Amino acid sequence: MKKYHVAVVGATGAVGQRILQQLTKRNFPIETITFLASKRSAGKEIQFSGQTYVIKEAVPEAFDGVDFAFFSAGGSVSKALAPEAAARGAIVIDNTSAFRMDPEVPLVVPEVNRHDLKQHNGIIANPNCSTIQMVCVLEPLRKAFGLKKVIVSTYQAVSGAGAIAIDELKKQSNHFENRSDISADILPVRSGEKHYPIAFNAIPQIDVFTDNGYTYEEMKMINETKKIMHMPELKVAATCVRLPVVAGHSESVYVETESEGVTIEQIRNILTEAEGVTVMDRPEDAVYPMPLFAEGEDDVFVGRIRHDIDDPSNLHLWIVADNLLKGAALNSIQIAEAIIEDGIR
Amino acid sequence: MKKYHVAVVGATGAVGQRILQQLTKRNFPIETITFLASKRSAGKEIQFSGQTYVIKEAVPEAFDGVDFAFFSAGGSVSKALAPEAAARGAIVIDNTSAFRMDPEVPLVVPEVNRHDLKQHNGIIANPNCSTIQMVCVLEPLRKAFGLKKVIVSTYQAVSGAGAIAIDELKKQSNHFENRSDISADILPVRSGEKHYPIAFNAIPQIDVFTDNGYTYEEMKMINETKKIMHMPELKVAATCVRLPVVAGHSESVYVETESEGVTIEQIRNILTEAEGVTVMDRPEDAVYPMPLFAEGEDDVFVGRIRHDIDDPSNLHLWIVADNLLKGAALNSIQIAEAIIEDGIR
Repeated sequence: MKKYHVAVVGATGAVGQRILQQLTKRNFPIETITFLASKRSAGKEIQFSGQTYVIKEAVPEAFDGVDFAFFSAGGSVSKALAPEAAARGAIVIDNTSAFRMDPEVPLVVPEVNRHDLKQHNGIIANPNCSTIQMVCVLEPLRKAFGLKKVIVSTYQAVSGAGAIAIDELKKQSNHFENRSDISADILPVRSGEKHYPIAFNAIPQIDVFTDNGYTYEEMKMINETKKIMHMPELKVAATCVRLPVVAGHSESVYVETESEGVTIEQIRNILTEAEGVTVMDRPEDAVYPMPLFAEGEDDVFVGRIRHDIDDPSNLHLWIVADNLLKGAALNSIQIAEAIIEDGIR
Repeated sequence: MKKYHVAVVGATGAVGQRILQQLTKRNFPIETITFLASKRSAGKEIQFSGQTYVIKEAVPEAFDGVDFAFFSAGGSVSKALAPEAAARGAIVIDNTSAFRMDPEVPLVVPEVNRHDLKQHNGIIANPNCSTIQMVCVLEPLRKAFGLKKVIVSTYQAVSGAGAIAIDELKKQSNHFENRSDISADILPVRSGEKHYPIAFNAIPQIDVFTDNGYTYEEMKMINETKKIMHMPELKVAATCVRLPVVAGHSESVYVETESEGVTIEQIRNILTEAEGVTVMDRPEDAVYPMPLFAEGEDDVFVGRIRHDIDDPSNLHLWIVADNLLKGAALNSIQIAEAIIEDGIR
């Protein structure tokens, strides 16, 4: 079996760490691995598969000879270096939002639009975490009976804001009694002027606001869903909310479908057969997905499947997945695996 | 000014305690106050306005001479005793779900359907917490331009499940590191077979499931909204989720309206003028409602007001209120105040 030279840019971050775990767990065919970071982090040591590696500075020449470059070091790093890596023959799998809406860059969830990988020009974008888990469930429904509109409200974990946000929730959680006076430095947006406690709270802002009153996170869900599913006509409405949950994004999804007379049992069967999806939907036994139990799991979990009482062709779904795994690291590795399997590299 | 004989049934519970606070804070015209409970709690002492009272057993005769009886001791107590109290001339304001959908019983949020109080037969029902805060915002929108459909996903606090649920969240919050092994005894439903941790989690079940796959909490939001707003034709779809938040329910509400060409500024103005509603909606300054800061506040807060990008007559709203105050105790007292002001008693 052919083996590859893999580069990881941003290996010490929350997503980067999960990428290393997944490379090992999934036995990715690595011949050589190179760890790259900004000048500031270059020279530091990192452990991988029982060996110690020295992190090198991410300069364009560092990508010479690299087959797969996984980027998760922020949008500006990707913007500067991903084209350089691609020009040197690497296939970049980028976890940032830098290239997601670039018409020349495939935005891929292998279970949904694996075929788009063939059109790559050296860069493949990994979608936003909250988008990935949703489209994994929407795609089999689209295939079965068509979709018209999606209205989603999210319940997102702090791990999506990095290891520092996890630390902040940990500290704040010890202040149950004086919770309204908890100090905060990270959320909703680290570089912003105002910070709010996340412990014992819900913050209806993820990422910064755009001019239309939506946050970037909401616009990502709207735009990326249409691109991945090749449905520019699909209506998507989104509200994104951060919760005091460590890992695991949850989504209350309302779907207007073209179905008529489809039973809940048929929908459960369609989703049970869908790749990467696990149905957890036995309300009579209090069985449904929850983020606390999705942490560390590969699959996207779906439950609370119901018809709208007034409009029976519309459905309610409750979708949960580990945002750092299927929402980020795992999907990136699956993209690389698909490229190998399909002979694209 | 006339003063009244007030009875409080269930004064030691989470809602009962807030009822006592509100009676004092709002200077309710009390001549006599009587505290009633089950045989088990009778004989215990309770403090009110600097005085000590002995709790009496809630037997039918205990309501003789009572003007206003506030019930918050569970549905079975209300079912058994509210008609007895009403038969003895008391006006019962019931915080349980026992009589909410009874066509003979007004279900009242004073800002919305105060006029319904005139039709009372001795019992007035206080709606479900998550319903009250939503209709306070929906009603001014209905008046201004009509409503067709409401799709709501809730983010509900543990205080809605009583003081024991608050204690459970408090204990569990100290177990950040071993969070997937946290023991749980209360949620989602205390009397149920399975219990899940709420700390660092989101539980998509509030109250037990009905046969149609919806929970009672979801069905309450659907049915009570139509009754309070006198809109049997209004479509309501609901998903109710419990969060690790102490107090303050939040709601992501999507509304299909009859409006055309209404600006967000006009909607903010309509809601700013609405009684009991505070608009907190300056996304550019990261200003929006959050449950941590709604705790202890009287008003219903609304923000994140946006048009749907694809369907501009539809709106997104983020609605937050203290579920034990406007969602329960405060609304009950406001019902009694309206009865007095309107000369109904």
